[in-house]
Amino acid sequence: MSEVIEGRRARGGGAARRAERTAVSFETAKFITRNIPNFEVLNEEALQIIEYNAETILEEIGVNFVENPAALQRWREAGADVRGERVHIPRGLARKLCSTAPSQFTQHARNPGRNVEIGGKSLVLAPVYGPPFVRDLEGGRRYATIEDFRNFVKLGYMSKWLHHSGGTVCEPTDIPVNKRHFDMLLAHMTLSDKPYMGSVTEPSRAQDSVDMSKILFGDDFVDQNTVMTSLININSPMTFDGIMMGALEVYAANNQASIVSPFIVGGAMAPVTVAGTLTQVLAEVLAGVAYSQLVRAGAPVIAGAFVTSIDMNSGAPTFGTPEAAHITWGTGQLVRRLGLPYRSAGAFCGSKLPDAQAAYESANSLNMGLSAGVNFMLHACGWLEGGLVSSYEKFVMDADQLGALHGLAKGVAVDDNAQALDAIREVGPGGHYLGCAHTQANFKTAFWRSDVLDYKPFETWEEEGARDTSQLASAKVKKMLADYVPPALDEGKREALEAYVARRKESMPDAFL
Amino acid sequence: MSEVIEGRRARGGGAARRAERTAVSFETAKFITRNIPNFEVLNEEALQIIEYNAETILEEIGVNFVENPAALQRWREAGADVRGERVHIPRGLARKLCSTAPSQFTQHARNPGRNVEIGGKSLVLAPVYGPPFVRDLEGGRRYATIEDFRNFVKLGYMSKWLHHSGGTVCEPTDIPVNKRHFDMLLAHMTLSDKPYMGSVTEPSRAQDSVDMSKILFGDDFVDQNTVMTSLININSPMTFDGIMMGALEVYAANNQASIVSPFIVGGAMAPVTVAGTLTQVLAEVLAGVAYSQLVRAGAPVIAGAFVTSIDMNSGAPTFGTPEAAHITWGTGQLVRRLGLPYRSAGAFCGSKLPDAQAAYESANSLNMGLSAGVNFMLHACGWLEGGLVSSYEKFVMDADQLGALHGLAKGVAVDDNAQALDAIREVGPGGHYLGCAHTQANFKTAFWRSDVLDYKPFETWEEEGARDTSQLASAKVKKMLADYVPPALDEGKREALEAYVARRKESMPDAFL
Repeated sequence: MSEVIEGRRARGGGAARRAERTAVSFETAKFITRNIPNFEVLNEEALQIIEYNAETILEEIGVNFVENPAALQRWREAGADVRGERVHIPRGLARKLCSTAPSQFTQHARNPGRNVEIGGKSLVLAPVYGPPFVRDLEGGRRYATIEDFRNFVKLGYMSKWLHHSGGTVCEPTDIPVNKRHFDMLLAHMTLSDKPYMGSVTEPSRAQDSVDMSKILFGDDFVDQNTVMTSLININSPMTFDGIMMGALEVYAANNQASIVSPFIVGGAMAPVTVAGTLTQVLAEVLAGVAYSQLVRAGAPVIAGAFVTSIDMNSGAPTFGTPEAAHITWGTGQLVRRLGLPYRSAGAFCGSKLPDAQAAYESANSLNMGLSAGVNFMLHACGWLEGGLVSSYEKFVMDADQLGALHGLAKGVAVDDNAQALDAIREVGPGGHYLGCAHTQANFKTAFWRSDVLDYKPFETWEEEGARDTSQLASAKVKKMLADYVPPALDEGKREALEAYVARRKESMPDAFL
Repeated sequence: MSEVIEGRRARGGGAARRAERTAVSFETAKFITRNIPNFEVLNEEALQIIEYNAETILEEIGVNFVENPAALQRWREAGADVRGERVHIPRGLARKLCSTAPSQFTQHARNPGRNVEIGGKSLVLAPVYGPPFVRDLEGGRRYATIEDFRNFVKLGYMSKWLHHSGGTVCEPTDIPVNKRHFDMLLAHMTLSDKPYMGSVTEPSRAQDSVDMSKILFGDDFVDQNTVMTSLININSPMTFDGIMMGALEVYAANNQASIVSPFIVGGAMAPVTVAGTLTQVLAEVLAGVAYSQLVRAGAPVIAGAFVTSIDMNSGAPTFGTPEAAHITWGTGQLVRRLGLPYRSAGAFCGSKLPDAQAAYESANSLNMGLSAGVNFMLHACGWLEGGLVSSYEKFVMDADQLGALHGLAKGVAVDDNAQALDAIREVGPGGHYLGCAHTQANFKTAFWRSDVLDYKPFETWEEEGARDTSQLASAKVKKMLADYVPPALDEGKREALEAYVARRKESMPDAFL
């Protein structure tokens, strides 16, 4: 099938070729290229109102860049009115600064067959990011460890419809806070050959991410190419903290991509209305992306929005809601008018279990993400309990559903074969198509098929234990982890990475906060 | 809230008023009026190819009207080339005949506050139709009975986001086949005041449906208004059987609405390609709708498509797939170009349980139905196991999700209140919106909220038994059935309906096949 690219690649050198021959590779689909239109919920008038109001926020209210004198100095030099830590950006300035950011860029993977294009009509899918807990069917809910982390990287590597290894697939809470990033990066770099994300929790950790990437890819390659996409959250409303911006500065200076992303629970960090939230999101994105371009004009950046609504009874964030969809659709339109790649959506849910609630909410969010024109979808699988939990079962359940997004994005062929008029002639009124020549020629690729869900007759399903989806997924998780084989990696690079990590870890005391 | 209409209505007469005072009414949302665009996957060229090919099918291949000499005679008189039971319809004729069908009509309910508009920008939601089995958490899977049937009518009556009582919400298998329709109609007419569907399994049963409706609404009212929408399946490919067409003839002659609906499992009853299926669906819809207009020009009709894909490994129908979405979107475009109301989608799934699979598949289908511009959505809640099972729990789970469709369809307001610029000014960088005036004024209606799903903190949820969605839904089912109170009904009408049913039942022996 043309959409599937092989992970296995010929590499130079006898040792590499020998390593290659013993390596098993798992097929990964090419990133999605949309052949369907985006869904647009805002008309031109609404877009112009929101764009005008966003500039009003920037100019009149301003945004805070906290504990970051260098950022304030950059803004001053760019023409902003800086009062204390508050930056007032004259109407039009932020938009103008954003124009140097590329509308599309390549994120390279160490396996070049797994490079991804971010922007335009593409959609790149990456796994859940950030949960301190994991859950599986047998073990229940517990703090995540580095073993869990490695397991999720393995599952991601083996997931056909997942293009990206992600970043903090769970928090390895058994490793000191100041050393986690080493083990996380090492896992992504050695256990997978898909593209990955860098650390953002300290500027020094961003620098470690760059330095380790240089070992993996080579110094020159990293200078000239984007090999990391990292998640820079904005503290909404309108606050850019020094640590996150420090990480962004490291990445931008090194030509590495940042996702500049307001983190919005509607009603708490943004107004309760969709138009109000869109206005604030746009103002924040404009300021954040503009700042990345002040650090280095032309640095790759993704304009993002993490958006949920809130249950006003309990204060809990809610997912898969219509308001989140409206914001996701609307932000897509606004970001496309800025000419930037767009990050949003994911397999979001508030459920505590990988049950029907989780699936309703996740399916709603995934569908909205596809139709909104999202280019980079973090949290595309494995997210549970409002992002507190990485779920083993939900990881493979969601990752399977991502196959449906690939199918949806293909659009509808209308060539002669697709028109099937000869088949309709052959079968005629009252016939059936199961055996006809056209069906025989096309059935293998005609319909998307789940690799997790149950399609068996009732009786067979009952005899096999009447398993629900989480039980089917649990069996799949176990099989995948048992079947896992790492991708080939040059031994010299592996040793250099491990030596770097050992040396850096030794240079600092453990910190657990 | 403006979108919710009260079921309680003032009626004339002291006795009616007394009955009214003791009646409890359950709020029902007004049918959806879309304030968002439809999603269109086919371009103009693709539409024209499919439309041209559909006319080729009608003219060159033809369609079968079996065991129905009167239909063949009608076609002959209309100008078709009839050979045996095969009707060849000259290019353009069917489309021309379809033009007398109304693009929109009102289906009246006995409570006029629950009338629905079918066509245009509206979306009317009706429950599952047809399963011989039911399932619930305690009782498992079993043959459906009339008690189950009545329970589902009660649940439908009490479901806020469901506009329509439906038809065969499950098959009451404990009632003789030839007498079921009486008990089913009686349940819809007495246990609910929402609009309902008539029987289609024999023309005489369609006539019973009309006659009972005349008792409920009055003879003149039924002559002049549409009070039933009934489901006429086409035996794809291209076959119109005498019994179904006989029912359609009764309904059309009485100015009652029919859904003319190819029943497609892609790869079996239609080609494996999307464009091929769309071509056949359009040909079948053209022929069926045209025929309804030959029976009575101007009779209300809904152009439908029941579409699933097939798992070519097992032969099982599959749901929530990308190909089904493509067909649902494409059929919507084709039907709108015919100027007809559109029926498709539903909470479709193949799962045996109301689990994550059921929810992924159903959410995919529901979202596609909304974005495809569907006007009448049968199976919008309760469908399980490929339509073999009506699930109690899934009925309330899906019915709850229908609230999200209402929210999505609202679109995005951009008035001053929605722009929320004053709120953004008031809160400012680093603040939060939970207490601000704008939030206080708007939070009650700002976000859709589920009445079934879990939004509680983890600890509370765990203390309350760590219930999954099906357990939460089971509790809701029990509470609803315990709280059920029938809508007020004139005693004279009730007695007349019961007398009609008793008399008609006595006139025929029981038949179980």
